[in-house]
Amino acid sequence: MKQDIDRLMQERDLTAILIPADHNYSPALDYLVGHVHITGGFALKKIGESPVLIVGIMEIEEAAATGLTVYSDNQFGWAEIRASDYENPTAEFWATCLKQLGVEAGKIGIYGVGELNLLLAIQQYMAQNHPQYQLIGEKAPTLFDLAAMTKDADELMRIRSVAERTVSVQQATWDFIQQHQADATETVIKADGSPLTIGDVRRFILIQLMERGLEDTGMIFAQGRDAGFPHSRGQDHMPLKLGQPIVFDLFPRELGGGYHHDTTRTWCIGYAPPEVQKIYDDVMTAFEVSLEAYGLNKPTHLMQEAVLNYFESQGHPTSRNDPQTTVGYIHSLGHGVGLKIHEAPRITHLSNEDTFQVGQVITIEPGLYYPEQGIGVRIEDTFYIAEDGSLISLTPFRKDLILPLF
Amino acid sequence: MKQDIDRLMQERDLTAILIPADHNYSPALDYLVGHVHITGGFALKKIGESPVLIVGIMEIEEAAATGLTVYSDNQFGWAEIRASDYENPTAEFWATCLKQLGVEAGKIGIYGVGELNLLLAIQQYMAQNHPQYQLIGEKAPTLFDLAAMTKDADELMRIRSVAERTVSVQQATWDFIQQHQADATETVIKADGSPLTIGDVRRFILIQLMERGLEDTGMIFAQGRDAGFPHSRGQDHMPLKLGQPIVFDLFPRELGGGYHHDTTRTWCIGYAPPEVQKIYDDVMTAFEVSLEAYGLNKPTHLMQEAVLNYFESQGHPTSRNDPQTTVGYIHSLGHGVGLKIHEAPRITHLSNEDTFQVGQVITIEPGLYYPEQGIGVRIEDTFYIAEDGSLISLTPFRKDLILPLF
Repeated sequence: MKQDIDRLMQERDLTAILIPADHNYSPALDYLVGHVHITGGFALKKIGESPVLIVGIMEIEEAAATGLTVYSDNQFGWAEIRASDYENPTAEFWATCLKQLGVEAGKIGIYGVGELNLLLAIQQYMAQNHPQYQLIGEKAPTLFDLAAMTKDADELMRIRSVAERTVSVQQATWDFIQQHQADATETVIKADGSPLTIGDVRRFILIQLMERGLEDTGMIFAQGRDAGFPHSRGQDHMPLKLGQPIVFDLFPRELGGGYHHDTTRTWCIGYAPPEVQKIYDDVMTAFEVSLEAYGLNKPTHLMQEAVLNYFESQGHPTSRNDPQTTVGYIHSLGHGVGLKIHEAPRITHLSNEDTFQVGQVITIEPGLYYPEQGIGVRIEDTFYIAEDGSLISLTPFRKDLILPLF
Repeated sequence: MKQDIDRLMQERDLTAILIPADHNYSPALDYLVGHVHITGGFALKKIGESPVLIVGIMEIEEAAATGLTVYSDNQFGWAEIRASDYENPTAEFWATCLKQLGVEAGKIGIYGVGELNLLLAIQQYMAQNHPQYQLIGEKAPTLFDLAAMTKDADELMRIRSVAERTVSVQQATWDFIQQHQADATETVIKADGSPLTIGDVRRFILIQLMERGLEDTGMIFAQGRDAGFPHSRGQDHMPLKLGQPIVFDLFPRELGGGYHHDTTRTWCIGYAPPEVQKIYDDVMTAFEVSLEAYGLNKPTHLMQEAVLNYFESQGHPTSRNDPQTTVGYIHSLGHGVGLKIHEAPRITHLSNEDTFQVGQVITIEPGLYYPEQGIGVRIEDTFYIAEDGSLISLTPFRKDLILPLF
């Protein structure tokens, strides 16, 4: 949680954290200072102190809305530095600000999202011209990944709200499709007889999200063979067909950046062929196996291994018994969800670092994929681990395979 | 243009370009390989060769849609590297891939958008463990900034389409507001008598964008004092009021990431007080001054200086005659627009590097800001520089200050 940041800084021997802002939404910046609409400047937090913001004069007012101390870049000489002949004025400005804000030397943890190329240039300049500052990275899970892995009460309230709105969009999408009919070729058609396409459904969903203050971050609505590739997004021109599995993976966040929800359903419109029903039943059993394998403080990889054991017992290839397989069960069972769609903890056999802890928000998402048979099935809910250690679903939406038309 | 990338690599002595993919939209990745829905792996381009993609097995199918050569991460040993004891498996994997793809050593330009912290860790690991590869950054304008500064025919076609759709949203927004009435307190009200708020208008605009295949990237709809801060986004709870200037800066892009359009209008609903009209007239004159100062191959800073001269002659403070000022004319006159909302060239007196060139897409956006008087005015169009050197507006939408209610 946020209160852990100073301890995590101390463990890494960081004197300060610096998070540059740009046009990209930056989860670490949001986490450290609260949601702020700035497209330049940076946040600086010294160990044991509140963060401050340094921004251009055009963004002072937005920055001030955080309630934090805000400095204009010109207070630290940006206009002069920019007009001078420095090889990298931005890096020179960072060094000036660090000194002015009382950071004389030390390890500076750089976090957030931005242009990688510009950062490397800053790092190279600093190493040569201001070696008293070391700009520091770390592999995942980073300081922010670790702090954000357990959510506080405010975060949970926001996450619950996103969850409720996401479930409402799932319901609206189900209802929208259901109000259509099919023609003799098993194509779902609109009132005018033209096919209902994936693009039509996607546009409907986007507007439903928007009306609830959410934004899409790359939903999957993939049918048939496409559903067989876990990260295929689906093709907008494709008409919806009866009896073909549709993987609908929805992972929106608060509008403008913020907390996510993550949920997947697999639907067969009208009817399900027996081979799809069989795969679906196996995935649903794996879902039950997951829940049975849950236990507070237990390593997360045990849950994935329980699912691997089950799928392998049913004859499905997995990425454990064949790392090269492209069919069967080929992904992790789940992951943390928050300001980033993929956060700590990970639920995979490839990592034994994580355990289930109070305050985590995680997905459970078993799936099976056989693209050449036109089959992909994934079922995913997001869960919260409550104070008493119980696993509480935040996705109370029906898991039916068959979506019947009226 | 894209054909310049090899020359720009050569000038920088880059053996290869590497662009990591993650959940963030990455303009450089889109520019190099075309729009691709991958959330991991990377693109690699050796000098003189076409780029290739290295992705996880779940994203092979999406990557293949680019038409480029695609490798699965497991073909280069990702499963083994991940299971081994390397301090930074991702960096180790990069080194392995570079070698396997025939890059034995040299400068590797790292571009794109991503998590800064993770990149620094990779850079540090590579410097220690694989010093034959130097991961290289550069300050702006970078290789991609320079290549993307002039647009080819395909890009222009997409930009024109975004422009047409954006203008259509401006018109729809004007019409939407106009269909309301005002009450005795000069508050714009809905049919049920409740105030029409900035949030209502913003939601309307978001849906209009969506229906046209566009997405918002942080529009400004700021009224009164808020309009006086160039980057204030506006407050959703605020009712629209007659006679208060509203700065409406809309800069959407193609849905899911892509080309932008950028345009600003300032509206006073019902009537404009004389002091607002005066500021508006000065901004409109500055707009004319800008167009008169345009010339193919001329340095862009001369256009900004023409506007500074005009505003200063009218007694407005500017960031040239007072770099600390927070009122008057306090920003650049314009910038390039493309896959990034702010690209090269810059139109500012603080840079003399850029000239107007055929194929550029630029904004012109003079503005004046007096927040304590509740006044901000900005007018912005996007222009294209055609083959014959003429400056062609892509934003044919009325510039009226007064938006009359019916």
